[in-house]
Amino acid sequence: MSHTAGRHFLQIPGPSTVPERVMRAIDMPVIDHRGPEFAQLGKDVLAGMKRLFNTKSDVVIYPASGTGAWEAALVNTLSPGDTVLMVETGQFATLWKNLALRLGLKPEFIAGDWRRGADPAAIEARLTEDKAHTIKAVCVVHNETSTGCTSRIGEVRKAIDRAQHPALFLVDTISGLGSLDYRHDEWGVDVTIAGSQKGLMLPPGLSFNAISAKALAASKNAGIPRSYWSWEEMLAPNKNGFFPYTPATNLLYGLREALKMLEEEGLDKVFARHQRHAEATRHAVSAWGLEILCQNALEYSGVLTAVLMPEGHSEIAFRKTVLEHFNMSLGSGLGKITDKVFRIGHLGDFNDLTLMGALAGVEMGLELAGVPHRKGGVDAAMAFLTGRDTAVKAVKAA
Amino acid sequence: MSHTAGRHFLQIPGPSTVPERVMRAIDMPVIDHRGPEFAQLGKDVLAGMKRLFNTKSDVVIYPASGTGAWEAALVNTLSPGDTVLMVETGQFATLWKNLALRLGLKPEFIAGDWRRGADPAAIEARLTEDKAHTIKAVCVVHNETSTGCTSRIGEVRKAIDRAQHPALFLVDTISGLGSLDYRHDEWGVDVTIAGSQKGLMLPPGLSFNAISAKALAASKNAGIPRSYWSWEEMLAPNKNGFFPYTPATNLLYGLREALKMLEEEGLDKVFARHQRHAEATRHAVSAWGLEILCQNALEYSGVLTAVLMPEGHSEIAFRKTVLEHFNMSLGSGLGKITDKVFRIGHLGDFNDLTLMGALAGVEMGLELAGVPHRKGGVDAAMAFLTGRDTAVKAVKAA
Amino acid sequence: MSHTAGRHFLQIPGPSTVPERVMRAIDMPVIDHRGPEFAQLGKDVLAGMKRLFNTKSDVVIYPASGTGAWEAALVNTLSPGDTVLMVETGQFATLWKNLALRLGLKPEFIAGDWRRGADPAAIEARLTEDKAHTIKAVCVVHNETSTGCTSRIGEVRKAIDRAQHPALFLVDTISGLGSLDYRHDEWGVDVTIAGSQKGLMLPPGLSFNAISAKALAASKNAGIPRSYWSWEEMLAPNKNGFFPYTPATNLLYGLREALKMLEEEGLDKVFARHQRHAEATRHAVSAWGLEILCQNALEYSGVLTAVLMPEGHSEIAFRKTVLEHFNMSLGSGLGKITDKVFRIGHLGDFNDLTLMGALAGVEMGLELAGVPHRKGGVDAAMAFLTGRDTAVKAVKAA
Amino acid sequence: MSHTAGRHFLQIPGPSTVPERVMRAIDMPVIDHRGPEFAQLGKDVLAGMKRLFNTKSDVVIYPASGTGAWEAALVNTLSPGDTVLMVETGQFATLWKNLALRLGLKPEFIAGDWRRGADPAAIEARLTEDKAHTIKAVCVVHNETSTGCTSRIGEVRKAIDRAQHPALFLVDTISGLGSLDYRHDEWGVDVTIAGSQKGLMLPPGLSFNAISAKALAASKNAGIPRSYWSWEEMLAPNKNGFFPYTPATNLLYGLREALKMLEEEGLDKVFARHQRHAEATRHAVSAWGLEILCQNALEYSGVLTAVLMPEGHSEIAFRKTVLEHFNMSLGSGLGKITDKVFRIGHLGDFNDLTLMGALAGVEMGLELAGVPHRKGGVDAAMAFLTGRDTAVKAVKAA
Repeated sequence: MSHTAGRHFLQIPGPSTVPERVMRAIDMPVIDHRGPEFAQLGKDVLAGMKRLFNTKSDVVIYPASGTGAWEAALVNTLSPGDTVLMVETGQFATLWKNLALRLGLKPEFIAGDWRRGADPAAIEARLTEDKAHTIKAVCVVHNETSTGCTSRIGEVRKAIDRAQHPALFLVDTISGLGSLDYRHDEWGVDVTIAGSQKGLMLPPGLSFNAISAKALAASKNAGIPRSYWSWEEMLAPNKNGFFPYTPATNLLYGLREALKMLEEEGLDKVFARHQRHAEATRHAVSAWGLEILCQNALEYSGVLTAVLMPEGHSEIAFRKTVLEHFNMSLGSGLGKITDKVFRIGHLGDFNDLTLMGALAGVEMGLELAGVPHRKGGVDAAMAFLTGRDTAVKAVKAA
Repeated sequence: MSHTAGRHFLQIPGPSTVPERVMRAIDMPVIDHRGPEFAQLGKDVLAGMKRLFNTKSDVVIYPASGTGAWEAALVNTLSPGDTVLMVETGQFATLWKNLALRLGLKPEFIAGDWRRGADPAAIEARLTEDKAHTIKAVCVVHNETSTGCTSRIGEVRKAIDRAQHPALFLVDTISGLGSLDYRHDEWGVDVTIAGSQKGLMLPPGLSFNAISAKALAASKNAGIPRSYWSWEEMLAPNKNGFFPYTPATNLLYGLREALKMLEEEGLDKVFARHQRHAEATRHAVSAWGLEILCQNALEYSGVLTAVLMPEGHSEIAFRKTVLEHFNMSLGSGLGKITDKVFRIGHLGDFNDLTLMGALAGVEMGLELAGVPHRKGGVDAAMAFLTGRDTAVKAVKAA
Repeated sequence: MSHTAGRHFLQIPGPSTVPERVMRAIDMPVIDHRGPEFAQLGKDVLAGMKRLFNTKSDVVIYPASGTGAWEAALVNTLSPGDTVLMVETGQFATLWKNLALRLGLKPEFIAGDWRRGADPAAIEARLTEDKAHTIKAVCVVHNETSTGCTSRIGEVRKAIDRAQHPALFLVDTISGLGSLDYRHDEWGVDVTIAGSQKGLMLPPGLSFNAISAKALAASKNAGIPRSYWSWEEMLAPNKNGFFPYTPATNLLYGLREALKMLEEEGLDKVFARHQRHAEATRHAVSAWGLEILCQNALEYSGVLTAVLMPEGHSEIAFRKTVLEHFNMSLGSGLGKITDKVFRIGHLGDFNDLTLMGALAGVEMGLELAGVPHRKGGVDAAMAFLTGRDTAVKAVKAA
Repeated sequence: MSHTAGRHFLQIPGPSTVPERVMRAIDMPVIDHRGPEFAQLGKDVLAGMKRLFNTKSDVVIYPASGTGAWEAALVNTLSPGDTVLMVETGQFATLWKNLALRLGLKPEFIAGDWRRGADPAAIEARLTEDKAHTIKAVCVVHNETSTGCTSRIGEVRKAIDRAQHPALFLVDTISGLGSLDYRHDEWGVDVTIAGSQKGLMLPPGLSFNAISAKALAASKNAGIPRSYWSWEEMLAPNKNGFFPYTPATNLLYGLREALKMLEEEGLDKVFARHQRHAEATRHAVSAWGLEILCQNALEYSGVLTAVLMPEGHSEIAFRKTVLEHFNMSLGSGLGKITDKVFRIGHLGDFNDLTLMGALAGVEMGLELAGVPHRKGGVDAAMAFLTGRDTAVKAVKAA
């Protein structure tokens, strides 16, 4: 058996597979970032990102990973010692909280079991309690990449409103944007954080902040020292399509192409496609007799599905088997669910047959790794994708 | 449902999917085809092709499709009016026969039902009968791309030898080379014809002749006019790594890389990999209750599997469904089996999960197109790939 | 001094430098050459090539070098033993004549000194003499790549007409098309031959025939056996955008992009650009005190300039010096002018500064190789490009 | 005249032209940044960067522009309110100083006229004066991209040593590394800052810190909040080839290839090549009768040459002319020399003929833009490159 022939299946929940069109767009000569051709590029991608965030406010683009945009959201809006309300939805929420700590903020962390999104009621309760408005920002992860649970951002907004609390609302949709419906303005988000290497179908290296007027106003008084991340520095030259320091030009070529592709397909179709693949995956997991980590059906992610290993079995060993036998990378268990959970990414530029290849790789990997399971997961996914199971149910219901 | 997101599954039996490494090797600046850097390239690819053909004799490389190399094999060795013995193994054998006719040759065509390879006994019988040695060449297709049946070239050689007939032995392995074991010298082939876009993992545009000393001698007296295809013109400059007219430089870059990849994996492993995928495919077809076109298990192809449509069902409609719903191209029925057979390519740079995606696409396509079948094909292939069915059989046998 | 840093200057008169856009278009996944996406591609490139040839007649595209299209033009229109009138304009005319001989034709070769294009008067005289209409075709090279002399195709047409001779008119513009003005219909050409790797800005591997109705009619009775090159085989499937055998798909992607680029720039501008660069080059050669091979100013080529080495100096040694010191490939002397002439290509995707780099490489190479010359060639070219010399002349004239 | 045909000449002093090999290395599928293949990549590039920095200490790689690595150097070593001694060598030194201010540091800025590098004596004097060791770091730009003057880092080190001052020594060689000799360990630098898009021949998007043991020790007590830039976060996973957050995987592929290319050519040859091209450029400028901005011959940069416009002439208008007529981007005047200076980049993957094209573009641009100058710059550069002027001088001297 060969381990290296054929295309690698990159089924981690990001970076996702970059389509050929995007890679070829990136693979073009660098241009002068102070010239007229660049100005057009800059304007194009900034305008396109606003459409994707569903915002009329400002968007900034960093030559940096998503982690940089996390930091940017905090340092542009807050001051040392500020209290921020964060929610333990999983490993990335935890990392963001740790980042806040390192920046000198005081995060309050609403505990969670990593099996659901942020609880709007808990947020409302805590904010209502905070009569003194000590809490300066509420930080929520929209799509928790470590668990496959989303948080209902619109509901959280309503909770903040019900509490009549002036805190800023900061949302990380690094792994959601471009795969999941997102509405910066409608949901009243103040800073949205996103990254290039997920639904945007790019290699890693770009990240984003979408910024409400309220957030921009807050940045005037924010006291954490900053320069690379400074919105103010960015927004001035952005008006003409330029950047205050050397931008990642080639990734911007890719971004322009990726935005074009998303709009050619139609964003609604893109979002529906991811929901469909997520549901097919859950049919497979269920057929295998395995448990999905996310316990709230309203919060299932369209981006990835995290699956609990049966007690006593190692996801690390399982994923190693899959990589060696089937040339597929699956996502690992992170943080406190290390070696307990594996993750199947179904984000970005993805289709039915790639999903079926991936699910077959999981089913065969379970077999080869000796993980107890029932067969039939791939069958169940096919039944879902072809509508056969729906038909069967309809017959039964009749 | 989106028809264009994600990677296209190109499961026709050639052109096959070109690996990224090969495409990037091609995507480099053209160089002077009369300079020292080119000389090294020319020598490298000519030497590498000899290793792949398993020959110590000459190999020539044409900037042309495989059809050109078919023509080259005939025009370099034969004269107008010569009789050639050809075998109707399928559509490509038929096309080659038609080509011979157009070149003014007299092909005798041993009839066939397109469900097996060339019959060594029939060839032996005809040659034995030909006391006058009117037949100047025996032409056999090694891997019949229209049917998925191979011909046993070593056995045909033995048949010719038993008939003690001096005819040249011309073999087309356009779709076989690089995926199936091939032995130009050991099997006593005089001219082997190959192409770039199948097991060699390149785009179309290069084709090959491997030439025995006997064939080269015959070319001195061959009377069909020729220039582009002339071995003599080619072999002289080839000695120094050059070509008599402008070569397809960038495809030669790709060829060098492809040869390197095949040798990195190991040719034996490459061949075994294709046999394994072919067998997995047959398990699936069998589970679906469909019939494989090739009727001789000794002649199953490792490159593709052709499948008969149930009576009254159109493969054209079926493949259209698959293309529109699952972004996969399958091979069509050709010639006299048009609309009766579809073909699954599993050649070139290919692996388990791509196969599983492809088989899932077929199984779901059968469902959506309303083609009668049993479920379980994908399951059967997975059982084979993981060795589960073998275990089951072992238990039953015990 | 480093010999390998930086971009290679490929200043041979073809293959020319392939632009990034074209290379990236080629560097995309192969598609099913029998599917609907391919059909569109086929139609696009066939229509685009008609525009470039300035014809309303048929164009065929071969997966082959230009030499193949030479052969195609002859085998589709002529029969063994036919007399063809060819003109010795240089090495490529000689090679084409040799090819005609190998195909069993009887070329009459109007002798030439390789320093001018085909002489319309000589052609007229010979045709007038040929009362019996033994001559079946007149074959002229439009842009003689070995000498940098063009032939005036429109004038040759008029000569044929004056002679009232029914011979077919076959023209090779392999190295001219896309760089020089060309008018298949207006000039009454019957078969035009072209290639991909020159003005079309592609890698080698595609070639073309544009075919008049008269040539097509002649092909019905042409007696040289043919199959790969057969127009009849080609034209039928071409109607739907398909090809009779596997096309060089990826080069067709490149061709579509190259046609788009030529039309974006505007063909008139493209042609004027090449004339301008050719004139700048001649200014440089003249300033160096070297002699241009082409002696007829009406026939100077916009594609390349061939330069005579001073007596007793080797162009081979000179070009080796240039390659080793300046990472530039120049064209060699071919055939009977081997080691006597070097050629500067200024074709395809080319601009002022690349020309200046090339001319500087020549001027410095002359110095380092010890070839007698005056300085000032680069200066003279700059003066021409900036219009300075024109201004000077205007002043002097006043 | 066409403004878009042919290859763009990107002669800004960075980003530099990315070689094809590097672009194609980048243009490969993203891999799992937590898998074994990535670990090898990470180790390879970290080891290669240490060789390039000439250090045995730690190197960190940021997915960020060079500006990010500037910030990283400061925030990892200093605390709010710390005094840093910076030197006004030009616009980038000024920007770095402004960045320090924004981070809450107190930069002391030794004034400069932008026409020379940092003065070791002035630094020594200021440090000697600072008995209380208030100054925590000395920050010097090695290659001032706005002026084309280098600072002699080894001499600055000696000045610090003579002053027996414990300040950290921070050096920006963003535009120098890979083009100019650099010795982190030998010169006793504590933090060296570099970027990808200059001598490293990559697109923008990566930046670097090389870190001495002393700097690492200082980072334990540094009080500016940091997370993205935190060395501590980086160094732990780096040991195994991994990164604490998603790295810019594809740029790392390119970095591996670029390091390989630099080492294939040999670093000494690379550095000598840049010095040679810089000297050729100065010969041209001198012949034009224009003034080079840098006034200290010991500090001429091998990376770029900045040229003063004659009084009353606009570099903005001049560069616009050059871009429109000759498809070349030159560097603009920055900061207080805006519209007074243009810059010719001769860095990265660069060779003689590209230089000659660039210089010809400048000479012709001066003509077309009506800028007073003498002709002969291109000639002078050619004379230098071929050694002719040296020979002339030798004769004169004799």
